[in-house]
Amino acid sequence: MNTYGWAARDSSGILSPFHFERRANGDKDITIKILFCGICHSDLHFAKNEAGMTSYPFVPGHEIVGEVTKVGHNVTKFKIGDKAGVGCMVGSCGTCENCKQDLEVYCPEMIWTLKTFGGYSENIVIDEHFAVLIPNSLPLHGAAPLLCAGITVYSPMMYYGLCKPGQHLGVVGLGGLGHVAVKFAKALGMKVSVISTSPSKKNEAVERLGVDSFLVSHDQEQLQVAMGTMDGIIDTVSGPHSVLPLINLLKTNGKLIAVGVPTEAPEIPYIPLIMGRKLIGGSAAGGMKETQEMVDFAAKHNIIADIEVIPMNYVNTAMERLAKGDVKYRFVIDVANTLNSSF
Amino acid sequence: MNTYGWAARDSSGILSPFHFERRANGDKDITIKILFCGICHSDLHFAKNEAGMTSYPFVPGHEIVGEVTKVGHNVTKFKIGDKAGVGCMVGSCGTCENCKQDLEVYCPEMIWTLKTFGGYSENIVIDEHFAVLIPNSLPLHGAAPLLCAGITVYSPMMYYGLCKPGQHLGVVGLGGLGHVAVKFAKALGMKVSVISTSPSKKNEAVERLGVDSFLVSHDQEQLQVAMGTMDGIIDTVSGPHSVLPLINLLKTNGKLIAVGVPTEAPEIPYIPLIMGRKLIGGSAAGGMKETQEMVDFAAKHNIIADIEVIPMNYVNTAMERLAKGDVKYRFVIDVANTLNSSF
Repeated sequence: MNTYGWAARDSSGILSPFHFERRANGDKDITIKILFCGICHSDLHFAKNEAGMTSYPFVPGHEIVGEVTKVGHNVTKFKIGDKAGVGCMVGSCGTCENCKQDLEVYCPEMIWTLKTFGGYSENIVIDEHFAVLIPNSLPLHGAAPLLCAGITVYSPMMYYGLCKPGQHLGVVGLGGLGHVAVKFAKALGMKVSVISTSPSKKNEAVERLGVDSFLVSHDQEQLQVAMGTMDGIIDTVSGPHSVLPLINLLKTNGKLIAVGVPTEAPEIPYIPLIMGRKLIGGSAAGGMKETQEMVDFAAKHNIIADIEVIPMNYVNTAMERLAKGDVKYRFVIDVANTLNSSF
Repeated sequence: MNTYGWAARDSSGILSPFHFERRANGDKDITIKILFCGICHSDLHFAKNEAGMTSYPFVPGHEIVGEVTKVGHNVTKFKIGDKAGVGCMVGSCGTCENCKQDLEVYCPEMIWTLKTFGGYSENIVIDEHFAVLIPNSLPLHGAAPLLCAGITVYSPMMYYGLCKPGQHLGVVGLGGLGHVAVKFAKALGMKVSVISTSPSKKNEAVERLGVDSFLVSHDQEQLQVAMGTMDGIIDTVSGPHSVLPLINLLKTNGKLIAVGVPTEAPEIPYIPLIMGRKLIGGSAAGGMKETQEMVDFAAKHNIIADIEVIPMNYVNTAMERLAKGDVKYRFVIDVANTLNSSF
């Protein structure tokens, strides 16, 4: 099937219109006409081949929402006209221990959406197993970032038990991931502290997001006061940063969860882990079953991302702004209304 | 009360006979005539003031077993003649969150046994709350190391859920802590792999301890074969060592638990934690309730440490040998029979 989107052709990462082929819709596949697609930091990272894993031409986009326009004979979850979402993966082996436990994202043969042609494009053909149903009540533009940013923070909150009313959760970094973590945590009845390098984000965090406290990460006095008060911390920051001050914010049995990948390996002091029975854990997005649960949870609590909707031909500027952290809190491309006219 | 033991007087760490005072036995106290005391690496560490926390004269010893010779009016757990054990702590505040949850070892006001006069001595006076009852079926000399080495590995196995039949546990370092971890894990029906720098320990590990596999930590081929096979790892090593090869041994959701304190902070690569939802956690000994459970578990399964019993006046030589790792697997001082004659 002929289709089109925007692709990077080399490690400049600059995107431009691009025609390519999608596979025909198979018996277990659905075709989704893409309506909106979020811009995740990984899109930028891959467009510039910063991990050395990119094949060009590269079509970014793995926070995809749209409308189902075709269903294969054996499709059971979707009908034409349904709203569907696709996140960071489009396939897995289906038979390994992880797949059997609904942890497809940890399958050794999992296929990243970014290793195929992604969502900055007209449509996508995908095995229905790797799409989730978006409830009608969720505004689609704000729902798009849930597919990566949302599940990436929701899954560890569930797995590590950082989801109980009254618990105190720290969120490091108030960006695409962090602000959704705040919304989930507040919906779960938790006390939320944001730890950020940017004092300028404080007012909005407190007044609009309902954050209970805002700690500036280089303010030793603020950190000192908050020491030993948090049940868990979701660390969304991918720039280099030290983790000891974060570990010190945790109570006994506290959990620091890394979902952003620091470019340099941080040094981990074992002693504070041992003396407080604390842990540092990782988590990568979530399985498909949990992604559906997350979307349903978001619908129930009216949670969507705070976004800036942009036209397709603004994407290169958006990428530059994203690299500088100049977005509150996620760019979302209005694919359906602006992709076509860019050709 | 006048008493005596062996003490280090300076950071040479050399021990020699020493007279000192114990407090009178209070209403909630018991007095224990010390029969055996294990030699833990921390004793050596503190004797030489390697953590900069030692006050001299310093009487080491926190793997203490003996016979109750006196009970205060309000003592309920012990009667004269009972066998009792004392581990790494002798007091805590009793009122904080951690104390209320039987996690006295994480109480901010917890009193290390090593900050008082320890067990290389004739007797000890202690609040009964900080002593455990040693079941009569446990040989006392082999039970002594359970009070520190035993609980230090037992507690994280329980807390982190690394205690289920059929699970695969890695144990890094086959010393005082490691060999007890192996015994607990085998009693729990787990598969156990030892990861060690010393190929010479293999035969005994397999034949006598029943270890299922023995990996030499510098043998890349062996590590490669075992990659992704372990549910958890108890890392007992305190020397500098890299943790990435250990993380790679873990399955998805695997847990690396640090109970030995490396002298240098290891670098932790976040990516493998994230991509496998793995965690690195710490744990420090255990609370008193759990220490009693551990001793009862050991009695039920006839678990004691493998020890070399030594007279009091051999202690300086034993410390030298311990520093070189020349012991299988724990020195235990025959205090009752040899302390007196050393004066």
